Amino acid sequence: MEGTIRTLAENARAASFKTATLSTDSKNAALTRLAELLEVKTDDILAANAKDLEAGQQNGLTQALLDRLRFTPERIQGMAEGVRQVIALPDPVGETIEESTRPNGLRLVKRRVPIGVVGIIYESRPNVTIDCAVLCLKSGNACILRGGKEAFHSNTILAEITQQALADTGLPAEAVQLIPTTDREALNILLKLDEFIHCIIPRGGEGLIRFVAENSRIPVIKHYKGVCNIYVDKDADLDLAESIVENAKCQRPGVCNAAENLFIHRDIASEFLPKIARRLVGNGVELRIASSAANHLDGTDIPHNPATEKDFHEEFLDLILSVKTVDSLEDAIDAINRYGSGHSDAIVTTDETTAETFLSGVDTATAYWNASTRFTDGFEFGLGAEIGISTDRLHARGPMGLRELCTYKFIVYGTGQVK
Amino acid sequence: MEGTIRTLAENARAASFKTATLSTDSKNAALTRLAELLEVKTDDILAANAKDLEAGQQNGLTQALLDRLRFTPERIQGMAEGVRQVIALPDPVGETIEESTRPNGLRLVKRRVPIGVVGIIYESRPNVTIDCAVLCLKSGNACILRGGKEAFHSNTILAEITQQALADTGLPAEAVQLIPTTDREALNILLKLDEFIHCIIPRGGEGLIRFVAENSRIPVIKHYKGVCNIYVDKDADLDLAESIVENAKCQRPGVCNAAENLFIHRDIASEFLPKIARRLVGNGVELRIASSAANHLDGTDIPHNPATEKDFHEEFLDLILSVKTVDSLEDAIDAINRYGSGHSDAIVTTDETTAETFLSGVDTATAYWNASTRFTDGFEFGLGAEIGISTDRLHARGPMGLRELCTYKFIVYGTGQVK
Repeated sequence: MEGTIRTLAENARAASFKTATLSTDSKNAALTRLAELLEVKTDDILAANAKDLEAGQQNGLTQALLDRLRFTPERIQGMAEGVRQVIALPDPVGETIEESTRPNGLRLVKRRVPIGVVGIIYESRPNVTIDCAVLCLKSGNACILRGGKEAFHSNTILAEITQQALADTGLPAEAVQLIPTTDREALNILLKLDEFIHCIIPRGGEGLIRFVAENSRIPVIKHYKGVCNIYVDKDADLDLAESIVENAKCQRPGVCNAAENLFIHRDIASEFLPKIARRLVGNGVELRIASSAANHLDGTDIPHNPATEKDFHEEFLDLILSVKTVDSLEDAIDAINRYGSGHSDAIVTTDETTAETFLSGVDTATAYWNASTRFTDGFEFGLGAEIGISTDRLHARGPMGLRELCTYKFIVYGTGQVK
Repeated sequence: MEGTIRTLAENARAASFKTATLSTDSKNAALTRLAELLEVKTDDILAANAKDLEAGQQNGLTQALLDRLRFTPERIQGMAEGVRQVIALPDPVGETIEESTRPNGLRLVKRRVPIGVVGIIYESRPNVTIDCAVLCLKSGNACILRGGKEAFHSNTILAEITQQALADTGLPAEAVQLIPTTDREALNILLKLDEFIHCIIPRGGEGLIRFVAENSRIPVIKHYKGVCNIYVDKDADLDLAESIVENAKCQRPGVCNAAENLFIHRDIASEFLPKIARRLVGNGVELRIASSAANHLDGTDIPHNPATEKDFHEEFLDLILSVKTVDSLEDAIDAINRYGSGHSDAIVTTDETTAETFLSGVDTATAYWNASTRFTDGFEFGLGAEIGISTDRLHARGPMGLRELCTYKFIVYGTGQVK
């Protein structure tokens, strides 16, 4: 096993030297071929997927998990469209980030280049295989993919099709590698190969991501969870606050940029809390209200439960919201820095000074003033596509697109300078 | 022990929320006070340093190590000057990196902000305590310092003086913390505290850096070693090549950007090798020459030894150079990507196409055309100061200054946008 994984990583590394210097045209030609092949081989993909679905049913996967696993002709067509969208994106490789000439005449160019070999560890959705392979290729990286065991047959055929697209267009097929086993031990081996692999991006539940972060010798870019917060200030436009809180909590509660906690300035709590509570309950939201705030619902018929300290640390991914009053802007910032996961945090206020204090004080990837937290993603941020979202601080923070799959190198042009 | 280290890290994290939003003036005021205190307390520093020197002598440290450890009034003055140079540097915090307005009217600002808490693990030189604390403070970070046991008394007084400068100017003293023990176990505990510490920068020998990289759960920015290479192309100006190779090898052989390997195109080897060999030997260099190249020195009296494969992977940090001929530009690139450490690599050629192929093909932090590798450092690159050099790819590659001690956050200005 160790030999197999090591050879695979070595081959990916060798391929990465070739992909790093490919022209945009040749990368796009491979991606064009991949989009065609996904369409041409729809029946083969469906057949492989059927094996995964059958095994999933036998193993008692929930309907929700089976749905995540399932391909349809439309979903396959959607993947091909996704590939074509990436073809249309600008190539980040070779961009000049900065340039300067030193007093001794040396000209320094900081140039964007691929990272090298990127490992992606993910769970059930097999379309991630194509999404990630395509973003890595477009950014000149080789990649090593390790999908969930439930999707093994689907992932295998998708990786084969990608390799065929590379081979058909004269590119190294080994630039995209799928770990050929679902054994956990393979992952442990992979995560130690820092000699060949330069970056690991885990995508999935918190358990998987923690396992990867704790066992990897290779740098990991990740977010464990999205505990997103909204603070409604004493100077908020309360109608606007209502619509932002409703949207951030209810529009799609199962995603990482949905709000989980609401902090309300005490001066407006007696007015705002009953209004927003009624509106949220109307959307089916369960309210968990800290004792400091619950009295504002006394005498109403609005159903609510008491919030525990633990609730404020929780990523519910569901129609549940924890609510608390705060005594000041500073308390709101402290609360968000204590409970939040540094993903997406918003203030609603009409006061610019208050807003700027909040925006600089909250320690988060994305700080919003008067907007819903739901906008934190690569498409909304104009990156064109997204390989993931980082709540880490090194290399990338927030939504990550093609540029975040790159590093840089210094190119130094001299005329014989010596020191 | 675990409790002590954990509390210290928690305190640094709490302080980091304050240092992150300090004005440039208040940071500079603290640094100004620090420079003064270093001068005022010169005798105290010398007394603490004397304890380390005495212990070092008793423990049989070499003269070279004792010299690295030793403070003099001039060296302390030099540290104070170093602090004043950092005061003069622009504050990276708050810079707008990018800005855009989305079709829905959201205005996105990617703003540079401190990383948070930075851990620095270093070895014998106690001046690193001040250098690192100052760069971390100027960039708005809290820092946790862990120096070598040989310099414990010197580091302790320097950390105390820094904390006094912070307290004297109304800043949180806990923004600079020194691990108060030389026990190895403390380091192991520290490296697991990813809850409070966001980045580890190890500085020292390869052994220390590998230990840190293998045991850290916190992201590490590092370079293991500098195996720097020079390729002299068939179209090189040979006089220029001679002066570059001589400078890169001989000017200061003990540093990470000195050259360790020389690759010579076979077409010019019979002319170039005897010339450069004679010049290097005249500088006291030991030549280790691969069998493919040694025949070019046949019939000369130039002393040389055979090179083994292992020699080409070696960071000699000494007047030793491994030499090999290559058959082509591609062979040179392959050799550098195989043997080098991705630190600094140079080509000498008059052909622009050849140069550009080399500059994009070598996978390195710093690729030079017609210049010595010795220029890879923060001062030469115009960063004003240097916290270290990275041969990693994530976050920072090459020399790291104040900007590389920062991350960014997205600030999103809305007018009520919901999704």
